[in-house]
Amino acid sequence: MTEEMHHSHDSDEVVEELRDELSQQAKKLVSDLEHGHADAFRQGFAELHGFDQGQFYIHLPSQLRRQVIDWLTPNEMADVFDELEPDEVDMAALLEEMSPKYAAAMIDDMYSDNSVDLLSSLKDSHQLSMYLALMPKQDAVGIQKLLKYEAKTAGSLMGHDYVAVQDTLTIQEAMLAVKRAAEEAEQITYIYVVNQANKLVGVVSLRTLMLKPDTARLVDVMDTNLITVAPDTDQEEVAHIMADYNFSSLPVVLDDELLGIIMVDDIVDVIDEEAAEDYSHLAGVDVAKLDERPLTAAGKRLPWLIGLIFLGMGTASVIDGFNSMVKVAPILAVFISLITGTAGNAGTQSLAVAVRRLALNESSTFVRMLFTEIFIGLLIGVVAGLTIFGVVWFWKSDLLLGVAVGLAMMMAILVANVAGAFIPLLMDLIGVDPAVASGPFISTLSDLTSVLIYFNIAGWFIKIFGVV
Amino acid sequence: MTEEMHHSHDSDEVVEELRDELSQQAKKLVSDLEHGHADAFRQGFAELHGFDQGQFYIHLPSQLRRQVIDWLTPNEMADVFDELEPDEVDMAALLEEMSPKYAAAMIDDMYSDNSVDLLSSLKDSHQLSMYLALMPKQDAVGIQKLLKYEAKTAGSLMGHDYVAVQDTLTIQEAMLAVKRAAEEAEQITYIYVVNQANKLVGVVSLRTLMLKPDTARLVDVMDTNLITVAPDTDQEEVAHIMADYNFSSLPVVLDDELLGIIMVDDIVDVIDEEAAEDYSHLAGVDVAKLDERPLTAAGKRLPWLIGLIFLGMGTASVIDGFNSMVKVAPILAVFISLITGTAGNAGTQSLAVAVRRLALNESSTFVRMLFTEIFIGLLIGVVAGLTIFGVVWFWKSDLLLGVAVGLAMMMAILVANVAGAFIPLLMDLIGVDPAVASGPFISTLSDLTSVLIYFNIAGWFIKIFGVV
Repeated sequence: MTEEMHHSHDSDEVVEELRDELSQQAKKLVSDLEHGHADAFRQGFAELHGFDQGQFYIHLPSQLRRQVIDWLTPNEMADVFDELEPDEVDMAALLEEMSPKYAAAMIDDMYSDNSVDLLSSLKDSHQLSMYLALMPKQDAVGIQKLLKYEAKTAGSLMGHDYVAVQDTLTIQEAMLAVKRAAEEAEQITYIYVVNQANKLVGVVSLRTLMLKPDTARLVDVMDTNLITVAPDTDQEEVAHIMADYNFSSLPVVLDDELLGIIMVDDIVDVIDEEAAEDYSHLAGVDVAKLDERPLTAAGKRLPWLIGLIFLGMGTASVIDGFNSMVKVAPILAVFISLITGTAGNAGTQSLAVAVRRLALNESSTFVRMLFTEIFIGLLIGVVAGLTIFGVVWFWKSDLLLGVAVGLAMMMAILVANVAGAFIPLLMDLIGVDPAVASGPFISTLSDLTSVLIYFNIAGWFIKIFGVV
Repeated sequence: MTEEMHHSHDSDEVVEELRDELSQQAKKLVSDLEHGHADAFRQGFAELHGFDQGQFYIHLPSQLRRQVIDWLTPNEMADVFDELEPDEVDMAALLEEMSPKYAAAMIDDMYSDNSVDLLSSLKDSHQLSMYLALMPKQDAVGIQKLLKYEAKTAGSLMGHDYVAVQDTLTIQEAMLAVKRAAEEAEQITYIYVVNQANKLVGVVSLRTLMLKPDTARLVDVMDTNLITVAPDTDQEEVAHIMADYNFSSLPVVLDDELLGIIMVDDIVDVIDEEAAEDYSHLAGVDVAKLDERPLTAAGKRLPWLIGLIFLGMGTASVIDGFNSMVKVAPILAVFISLITGTAGNAGTQSLAVAVRRLALNESSTFVRMLFTEIFIGLLIGVVAGLTIFGVVWFWKSDLLLGVAVGLAMMMAILVANVAGAFIPLLMDLIGVDPAVASGPFISTLSDLTSVLIYFNIAGWFIKIFGVV
């Protein structure tokens, strides 16, 4: 019995149960929509979490979505749209199912960071200005300000829905202000304290407000050691700060003026997004948006592959240049793929380490990182070279061949390692995101350098010893 | 002037300023420690954020750390250690600088999820039991329970420092309970509601408590639509749920009993960790813990490289088997690296897509994903094969050679694509984390299949047409 009960709470089954329950609720809601049971629908829908409301809504047929629009107020719909990701859903199409007035009112009621995301995902600038024109002027101005910030900066992530209070208040007065603002604010865990010139002077947690005596003054309990970011701070930097300090929100300031706050849930998305980007570059394919349609998927992967084929043709013509040597010593062909493959693997490793190190903002200098990588390349090259030397000598009973292949391997690895580290370092230095240095590019480039090294070394051996 | 002011708030400079300010404070604190200014130190240290306190503490020389231990209570030190990551810092060494009693009291005062992380990082089981024996019995039992959960599960992430109230309370009574618990709890944004049998029956946000009338009953305002996880739920699944629902904490239940809660900041770490793991596998090198010492770094990269050299020897011996063919047609050597390189790149792409798709829990079946990848492989293979065919034909003015190389390229890409998808799918099916399928492994494996395909096709062409 205990066994069975325990089994019934196995993790997969919990998730399964959750899905079953959701699909039961969803079926009921669809039936309510189809049969015109407005009250039953409104009640059942309200019981869902925002995320589930969003998922339910986008999976409905358009006709039933129009029914939902009829039955929900723009304010209620704003909670649904707050949970949708503009890069996963066609927002323009969803908005076109509503009347312009309804859509504008809904966007106005969303949290401002989300409404800005939604509006900036609209490709048609006419739509954007239409919705802004239909909003209360003050709100439209606020959103327009947010729209101006560059993508992937703190400014583009921040919203206006925070609680800010004057530094002259007592705890009791501040508590009242928080209560008034609680309905609208995206979070009330931290309350920001500003002075009369609207400059940010402190932050206080709701927890502190609750624990301190009502008559205490805000200025005496607030934390004045502020961690802030500028509107043009890169989102990766913002993510690092929030992850390090475990903040649930982070203020964005310019000349000490509080412009907005960034929420931790947006940072979770940023971390996901940045990780998918790094992974994509290493693989030479964009995995951020997966597509099941083979044609689209193939279309995404081909540009890199075809581009690299032309770089690979460079390698082919190098080997072609040494064709007379291959004719004399066809054994040379045997080790081409072993040397290019191993050097490519080593180059990919060093690329990944360099990209990661740069992402973590490690404080080493360019020169120091490069020298470290040269030294690592030498170490790895020597070990791998000696391994190959031993294997080839043993296999072919040919000491000279072993030395030539081993030496070529060592040199090829060293060069690939240095290239793998140097290229992202150089990109970082000239201000390009080092993560765009692609794994396949490094390994194809190292194919070229590897065959150059290999055939030159083989050539010297033939010249000096008359054989390989 | 405006220009200048604006410039002074450029993002890099803001971070720079922050660092300068911190290092000023740090210098002052070190001097206080050295000159025995206990009060000045305690005051200055208290003004730092927890994260900065932690960073300051671990960068001190051991002698000054002992001074800090003398001047801070175990409870104050717990705030510092709550911010340290046991996988980045040698906790055992830090604890040994304290008296066992002080260390035990400090661990007891930490948030339970952090104290469990700290204790499970101790390699010496004697130390672990010593600290547990020095704690109040009830706390030790609670921590021992948490220590039993497997790593990377919800159970290993959860803590006990949440606010839970009885469902019989009114809002006013609940508010009082929250105030009493506020000092100890890790978060008070969500309050969990349990019945007399200690089963979780609802959740209510502090915001709701603040907005509802004092006399309302908790059962009437709480949210009963609970999203929970089981203690053995995988941490990646937990991260997905928290990211989707934007929760700041998530309850862990077994048979409806509330065992603990998981905080969003731990999930940020999980997402980072899982992303670093996936990246590491794709690169064939562990980037989670970077090491600047070349010997250690080389030691991390070599095992994969050397292992793959032996797989690469398989490829070398396949080419060796076709050596008589290379002797007759040395032109064949020219295209080895182009074909193996391109197929390797295609295989890496398809591996990355499959790993990502499995991580996102996409609901496609094994067979469907495999067929999709075969179709994509065919599409990519045909386009790349035709490109190569055209290039080779044009370059060497040899139609047959172009057809042979193009055909080999097409087949090699198809096989690499299918292998890249099949291997992680198979691993997922047999219950191994598909992310361990390494990029270098796939590309080295595809070297082998590529040369097999290439030389066999070339062999047929020679047999049938007498030439390539």
